Amino acid sequence: MIKRKSLEEYKQGVIQGNRVILSQAITLVESNLDSDSELAGQLVQEILPHSGKSIRIGITGVPGVGKSTFIEAFGKLLLSKGKKVAVLAVDPSSQKTRGSILGDKTRMEKLALDKRAFIRPSPSGSTLGGVSAKTREAMLLCEAAGFDVILVETVGVGQSEVAVKGMVDFFLLLMLAGAGDELQGIKKGIMEMADALLIHKADGENVAAAKRAKSTYSNALHLFPLAENSWSPQVITGSSISGEGLEEAWSMVLKFQDQMLRSGWFERTRASQRLTWLHESVQAILGKQFYAQPKVKKLLESDEEEVKNGIKNPMTLARELTKIFLS
Amino acid sequence: MIKRKSLEEYKQGVIQGNRVILSQAITLVESNLDSDSELAGQLVQEILPHSGKSIRIGITGVPGVGKSTFIEAFGKLLLSKGKKVAVLAVDPSSQKTRGSILGDKTRMEKLALDKRAFIRPSPSGSTLGGVSAKTREAMLLCEAAGFDVILVETVGVGQSEVAVKGMVDFFLLLMLAGAGDELQGIKKGIMEMADALLIHKADGENVAAAKRAKSTYSNALHLFPLAENSWSPQVITGSSISGEGLEEAWSMVLKFQDQMLRSGWFERTRASQRLTWLHESVQAILGKQFYAQPKVKKLLESDEEEVKNGIKNPMTLARELTKIFLS
Repeated sequence: MIKRKSLEEYKQGVIQGNRVILSQAITLVESNLDSDSELAGQLVQEILPHSGKSIRIGITGVPGVGKSTFIEAFGKLLLSKGKKVAVLAVDPSSQKTRGSILGDKTRMEKLALDKRAFIRPSPSGSTLGGVSAKTREAMLLCEAAGFDVILVETVGVGQSEVAVKGMVDFFLLLMLAGAGDELQGIKKGIMEMADALLIHKADGENVAAAKRAKSTYSNALHLFPLAENSWSPQVITGSSISGEGLEEAWSMVLKFQDQMLRSGWFERTRASQRLTWLHESVQAILGKQFYAQPKVKKLLESDEEEVKNGIKNPMTLARELTKIFLS
Repeated sequence: MIKRKSLEEYKQGVIQGNRVILSQAITLVESNLDSDSELAGQLVQEILPHSGKSIRIGITGVPGVGKSTFIEAFGKLLLSKGKKVAVLAVDPSSQKTRGSILGDKTRMEKLALDKRAFIRPSPSGSTLGGVSAKTREAMLLCEAAGFDVILVETVGVGQSEVAVKGMVDFFLLLMLAGAGDELQGIKKGIMEMADALLIHKADGENVAAAKRAKSTYSNALHLFPLAENSWSPQVITGSSISGEGLEEAWSMVLKFQDQMLRSGWFERTRASQRLTWLHESVQAILGKQFYAQPKVKKLLESDEEEVKNGIKNPMTLARELTKIFLS
């Protein structure tokens, strides 16, 4: 067992913005040990009154779109504006071959060196449900430590976007011009979740193509339904090399925040995210216990294939399984 | 308690295509009585080998787009081709003021009168989860009764589309030209779920606008990611008055089916839908028992507001609740 600090030590360290203790506190929250989870729960509860004051920005895009370079450049711009920036990653595939913050560490080096920045890769070896729950708690800890902008990075290839969309205020999709093959990597539905598209690598010879892509996507997005909060998704171009578009991206986030605060959607969305988090956590805990139950496992192993092949009624197996579990 | 038939009577009646018994069998499946659910489960299990041979088409669109008129016209076309057509509705809002098959019964009169057609409105007084589980079973019963085409109608305003997308082979979104206000009713994300868009009411003075809308949406949809099955969503125009586009809609469904059968995606999607159905049913049953548990209810009532307002850690409450439930 890892040596732990006391609740008070963690709490004070986090609130004072001590990055080492913040890091240890996130490790505590990410721990799968039962002995840690109670302390972690208490800690998050204790720092809760100090959380919530940041703007939370989700950033996604396929591997190769330049997420890390963007986050480094965007992060540095925010530091220059006096902001404290935390970067978290939700990427259940980071242990595999895909690009992730871990692999890109060198590219975020400058940001990582700055004391007003905090970079935290994905917790390893977790399921998506676990990652997102832990990222939510890590986010609250970062806020309590005084970070004003939380950037949550995810790879645009799966369910993790839905999880990230459910924990941030603003969701940014990075894209490349000449959207042929690049698009194949993005799953359907992700584009409609975005509050903004940024056509990245709009520098050198790419500038003209990026501008064309911007206008094409702007036209297309206007055909799509507005979100309930009445925000109309924006399309901009940007380069992490020339720095073009980064100011515009930040103004857009501020404009969004301002509009949501005025309309009441900012707090309404966060309140609904908290409730969703509660009910998802209940579901995750129940599901974990359910599928780990030996009798449930055994029946699933023997009968799941029959359900898959249409030989057994899914509803019947579901009733049998839950009966076993609750008895 | 309602008088029930024996398992064998239901089974034979359904398999012989007796519409009265089919209707009674669906009522049995929709029943919330514990005494009915075992018999219903057995019945669905018994007819399972006779199910699965239809093409399942989901149809959605905002109120006013003309779903019922379309289904009547499209259904009659299919009857003329020798098909047997069943129409089911998934619409948890049907008890409220929105348009539904119930309210539109007169408009589907001709279809309803034909013996080769079967029309069944939404089960009333159910939650969405319940409706969709029951609609899936009703669908299997209709297939066992020999219906070749199952049209599942839903209103394009909420989560019911996700449920319907998860139970059909092909998902059709009806739209109107001059997409201004009409679009507001469609939730974000639904357009990206569609396998095809049909610009409806493309008759009389609307023809030109419908053609323009067709080309605009075609261009826009090409910018969006392809689905995993490599189907590229089609846009067509149609009128239930002139009949224009109905043949094209059907050819498109057949082309889709042919392509999916060849690539193996047809069966793969159905197998994955069955597994999803299993796991969703488990979740629904567990959730129902969980939220009905008196101690869980009590703690939720007292602490949910604190979670919503950011005073209590959602994770902590989730742990407390599940502990109570499982003890």
